[in-house]
Amino acid sequence: MKIGTEERKAKAPYSLNSKKVADATMLWLEKRGVKIEEIAELVMLLQKKYYPGLTMEECMHNVEQVLSKREVQNAVLTGIQLDLMAEQGLLIPELQDMVANDEGLYGVDEILAFSIVNVYGSIGFTNYGYVDKLKPGILERLNDKTLGPCNTFLDDIVGAVAASASSRIAHRKQAEREQEQGEDTLGKDIVR
Amino acid sequence: MKIGTEERKAKAPYSLNSKKVADATMLWLEKRGVKIEEIAELVMLLQKKYYPGLTMEECMHNVEQVLSKREVQNAVLTGIQLDLMAEQGLLIPELQDMVANDEGLYGVDEILAFSIVNVYGSIGFTNYGYVDKLKPGILERLNDKTLGPCNTFLDDIVGAVAASASSRIAHRKQAEREQEQGEDTLGKDIVR
Amino acid sequence: MKIGTEERKAKAPYSLNSKKVADATMLWLEKRGVKIEEIAELVMLLQKKYYPGLTMEECMHNVEQVLSKREVQNAVLTGIQLDLMAEQGLLIPELQDMVANDEGLYGVDEILAFSIVNVYGSIGFTNYGYVDKLKPGILERLNDKTLGPCNTFLDDIVGAVAASASSRIAHRKQAEREQEQGEDTLGKDIVR
Amino acid sequence: MKIGTEERKAKAPYSLNSKKVADATMLWLEKRGVKIEEIAELVMLLQKKYYPGLTMEECMHNVEQVLSKREVQNAVLTGIQLDLMAEQGLLIPELQDMVANDEGLYGVDEILAFSIVNVYGSIGFTNYGYVDKLKPGILERLNDKTLGPCNTFLDDIVGAVAASASSRIAHRKQAEREQEQGEDTLGKDIVR
Repeated sequence: MKIGTEERKAKAPYSLNSKKVADATMLWLEKRGVKIEEIAELVMLLQKKYYPGLTMEECMHNVEQVLSKREVQNAVLTGIQLDLMAEQGLLIPELQDMVANDEGLYGVDEILAFSIVNVYGSIGFTNYGYVDKLKPGILERLNDKTLGPCNTFLDDIVGAVAASASSRIAHRKQAEREQEQGEDTLGKDIVR
Repeated sequence: MKIGTEERKAKAPYSLNSKKVADATMLWLEKRGVKIEEIAELVMLLQKKYYPGLTMEECMHNVEQVLSKREVQNAVLTGIQLDLMAEQGLLIPELQDMVANDEGLYGVDEILAFSIVNVYGSIGFTNYGYVDKLKPGILERLNDKTLGPCNTFLDDIVGAVAASASSRIAHRKQAEREQEQGEDTLGKDIVR
Repeated sequence: MKIGTEERKAKAPYSLNSKKVADATMLWLEKRGVKIEEIAELVMLLQKKYYPGLTMEECMHNVEQVLSKREVQNAVLTGIQLDLMAEQGLLIPELQDMVANDEGLYGVDEILAFSIVNVYGSIGFTNYGYVDKLKPGILERLNDKTLGPCNTFLDDIVGAVAASASSRIAHRKQAEREQEQGEDTLGKDIVR
Repeated sequence: MKIGTEERKAKAPYSLNSKKVADATMLWLEKRGVKIEEIAELVMLLQKKYYPGLTMEECMHNVEQVLSKREVQNAVLTGIQLDLMAEQGLLIPELQDMVANDEGLYGVDEILAFSIVNVYGSIGFTNYGYVDKLKPGILERLNDKTLGPCNTFLDDIVGAVAASASSRIAHRKQAEREQEQGEDTLGKDIVR
């Protein structure tokens, strides 16, 4: 709940430090075994068909830009937190069972994933569903229940970041195309 | 991530027990100081203007029906869990700061709330935003930061349950109206 | 915008007839060449792996139940309406171009689809994205741009109805499983 | 449906011109009687309490930035289109009745509004619900059913643009605060 909050915070000693939140996001992805390169590979898999000249550098850059958004960082940290708690058996028993077993009727992991995809608009929904179902590359490893860590949230989050980066590329490529055509265009202004 | 999950679970000893999840939801709402009557009072506040004959019994019944949905239970338990962890200082430091201080740019509480509202369709969005901003009744108490417990998630969740119960009433009242008018109607079949 | 509306309607001659809206939904799906059986086939494709005993009758029943929800009917009728207008060239020119050409950066069709999927909770997101990307069965035909009709909205809507019916089956099968196991259970009460 | 689309478009003569879509959005808002200043006044109303030094120039600038996003333009044009069609009585009869009468159980207008709010994250949900319920300023006029035009979609859209601009301001003000404090900060990089 956000509203009275802002008034209250005028006096509170707490002050959000955006850089710390951003750094924690990158640190925890790494701690949980996720490399930016691996997310970029998912992006390449999703987009190379449409943009044959797409490079891994571009994919990595777009993943990093997605991860620089506050909503994305909030979802990443919250999801990893719940995975960590489940791994240590610290959740309310009924929630513990559902998260630890990645229960089919527990959908909060998908909900967090969608809060990531939404930031780049509805065109990312399809890509998210697709990689989430097929689990290529890193998603197969994250989803392997025999390996120890609980990644109930993390695999959905990684898929969502890749889908968002794909949407971001689609928006940017359109802007580039219009600029090249010398059209009277908004160019870079239209994109995030 | 839900897919391979279902296959895996064929062998797994884990089996979801819906009644336990439902019971835990009611128990934890109570433990966190939320009474069904108080949520029903929010519903009455939102709906009495449109349905002057609305009774508290109806409001309570509709709140209970909302709370019987799995998606709602998942969101309630997950939100309370994060509040609990924040209260005990157990979260990742950067997340701890944001949840404990109900940081204005942290919106995962609203995201969980919306997963509740969504179950009864988009007509609940407005009611949710309205009670969340004005914080009548129980929401004022839950949002009072001087009282000890961390309710960053819980106040949004309670507002969302009230908004959903309001949507449910709107759908049901329409069905009743059509039945009374003796119209060739779908009656109760159309409603959840 | 819904609020003053309800007051106003007390006096207004207009009165929603739910049966007419439901009938119009079925009629327009048929007019646009979509058979319930074909949506049921998508459901079977998505679910047979998890429920080997699943019958076409069950799939059809679940599709029909999804189509009996008001939010779903609203999305189906609104989407078909926009397809119809695009086919006749009646839209605002810039919108006409985007809808008629199923522009990659136009995502309102996905947004309507998600309002359908949401009604059965987040577990349907993945199934929607999957069928929307692979376009099996009827979705291939609906998406064939050489065939005349504009189905920019309809193909997403059909995929979303199939994904929702899949979610509904997952919820119901869990309830059946618990009942068979003679567990102290909520049984049918928990499901829609 | 977006996927095969991209391949097909390689050959198609159609090519999205982003500037035209952006211009059409501004033109149609104006044609429907909505001034940027009026949306900015809603933003001021929502935010002046938290940022006493906020100027109308800032509010207008943020509204313009929100309106420069493709997802927002898509929702604005599609919503105005449906209002226009309803005004001319051109919709499928059952849909016509619901849109022309702003039926309480028809929620596609809220769904389009939420696709706008989502672009700036979940913190805008509350502001949207609040202005949508209280209808200050321009929203009262848009919602006045005695005035002729059908604004079933437009009033929700205007409220959503104001809520999004409020979220954008909250994100930016945080960045400014951190920069002023000379913190090791991400500054402008974190914001859209």
